[in-house]
Amino acid sequence: MKVVRSFTVIGPGAIGGYYGARLRQAGFPVRFLARGDADHLRRHGLRVDSPEGDAVLDIEVYDDPVEVPPSDVVIVATKTTAQDGVAARLAEVVADGSTILVMQNGLGVEAPFHRAVPGATVLGAMCFMCSNKVGPGHIVHLDYGAVSLGEYREDGRAAGVTEAVQAMVDDLHTAGVTASPVPDLETGRWQKLVWNIPFNGLSVVLDATTSELMADESSRRLAELIMVEVVNAARACGHGFDESFVAQMLANTEQMAPYRPSMKLDHDAGRPLELDAIYAAPIAAARAAGAPMARTEVLLAELRRLGAAPVTAQAS
Amino acid sequence: MKVVRSFTVIGPGAIGGYYGARLRQAGFPVRFLARGDADHLRRHGLRVDSPEGDAVLDIEVYDDPVEVPPSDVVIVATKTTAQDGVAARLAEVVADGSTILVMQNGLGVEAPFHRAVPGATVLGAMCFMCSNKVGPGHIVHLDYGAVSLGEYREDGRAAGVTEAVQAMVDDLHTAGVTASPVPDLETGRWQKLVWNIPFNGLSVVLDATTSELMADESSRRLAELIMVEVVNAARACGHGFDESFVAQMLANTEQMAPYRPSMKLDHDAGRPLELDAIYAAPIAAARAAGAPMARTEVLLAELRRLGAAPVTAQAS
Repeated sequence: MKVVRSFTVIGPGAIGGYYGARLRQAGFPVRFLARGDADHLRRHGLRVDSPEGDAVLDIEVYDDPVEVPPSDVVIVATKTTAQDGVAARLAEVVADGSTILVMQNGLGVEAPFHRAVPGATVLGAMCFMCSNKVGPGHIVHLDYGAVSLGEYREDGRAAGVTEAVQAMVDDLHTAGVTASPVPDLETGRWQKLVWNIPFNGLSVVLDATTSELMADESSRRLAELIMVEVVNAARACGHGFDESFVAQMLANTEQMAPYRPSMKLDHDAGRPLELDAIYAAPIAAARAAGAPMARTEVLLAELRRLGAAPVTAQAS
Repeated sequence: MKVVRSFTVIGPGAIGGYYGARLRQAGFPVRFLARGDADHLRRHGLRVDSPEGDAVLDIEVYDDPVEVPPSDVVIVATKTTAQDGVAARLAEVVADGSTILVMQNGLGVEAPFHRAVPGATVLGAMCFMCSNKVGPGHIVHLDYGAVSLGEYREDGRAAGVTEAVQAMVDDLHTAGVTASPVPDLETGRWQKLVWNIPFNGLSVVLDATTSELMADESSRRLAELIMVEVVNAARACGHGFDESFVAQMLANTEQMAPYRPSMKLDHDAGRPLELDAIYAAPIAAARAAGAPMARTEVLLAELRRLGAAPVTAQAS
């Protein structure tokens, strides 16, 4: 007899709110650990608007980690800008034998959680989806939704498709989510960066949606050149994959509904940008591997300035 | 006995208006060929606000090239975005034996004028100054004002300090302008680009003044990295100069009053940007010499997009 696993979602935002809702709808016990939105979620529930159907779910909400019942899987879906704070209290939520599933973008995002709870199994998930949190407890899912996931290893090498990975893939399937195992998590992380590095950054610097970036010959070509740079960096880091991946990503982006990536939403809302995980970490890894990312470095420097001082130049 | 030379200034903007005014104030006959501002200039004169003293000058204004009397020196001080139009009618203004002085930024800016009037002596000038045209016939000179100039050669090689160069330097001195001859115009052009490429572009992309760019650690460092890239490109093109030039330029920029470079003003006013002369031409020259300018290419691609579509992203 198969045991139904329980879940805790830390951070019910665009990603955690969406997948947590899908698991909840499929009958899994799901606890949500929220901060600012906790009261709103308790009173009004979690609202998810999606092409697959709109829903408002009555959910189990906590705002104090020590009060969350032990769950089989703890999903970390907070922004990487809060990494230290989440890691510091993660042990209060993770029970013996729990699996930690890190649903975040970037490189090196699993390490602080592995260090925080050394015995736990840590998985990393790449979420290929367009989803925005538009207000307290309100997620708008626009498009896509597939997840690929693999097991974290401290040495960065391929863990293969482990039991923990397969169990998570199975649960996501049960929840109606397209999920696939990746034998090498780091390769999966780099593949995701091929999209995130150009489109998150350029949407902020050029104040444009993905479709505006794709419609302009110059920004489209720039996105492509940056993608190629990421592929080469990944290769230098020992995570080779075919460059045809770039053309495929561009074709996917072309077919997406006009979309403001999360970094663009963060910037427009005056929130900190996820620059360390999405930019600084891959740049450092590539540089250490002898493959400097000159174009990506330009983008990071621009984003740092725009993130630090979103002021308008005054006429002199 | 020294003959007093006459001047025609095509384009009485931030550059042409300022230097034309200085020559006029020193007693040289100066004719101004204007387009949109001609009536305003005739009625109200040319106003130059400057730390060296404010002035409103009654000037000789023309709006039709064929009506301009022959002058010894024709100063081209239009935007490089109007290059073809100016070149097409240049022969109507240039007399036998005239010297053409090209006061523009960028690379390859002299060539169209040399082709338009093959017999003429063509000089190129680099103007190190902060000056803005703030309204019709109204120039605000903020800081600096030195000019260096050299003679154009079709083969791109050093012409040395020719008689024509020395005569122009002498006239500028007479007008109270700090002027120095450069034996190799192309080297001078590249040196000027070391400043123009980072600060023109970044002021637009990051919506910032020079002092804002210098105050932010990240944008300052990016400007420096781009400067180094330009120095390396120049070197690959056979125009070597010392990398200490970068530190010197940064120190100068630090001491400048907060300044919006001309490209920033053009962008804010919805005018076309001088991307071919300042970006595309040096990038192409460097690439041909085997030194691709990866950082500058990112900036150009961003500027092309921002120049083409200064629209704000809509929420999706």
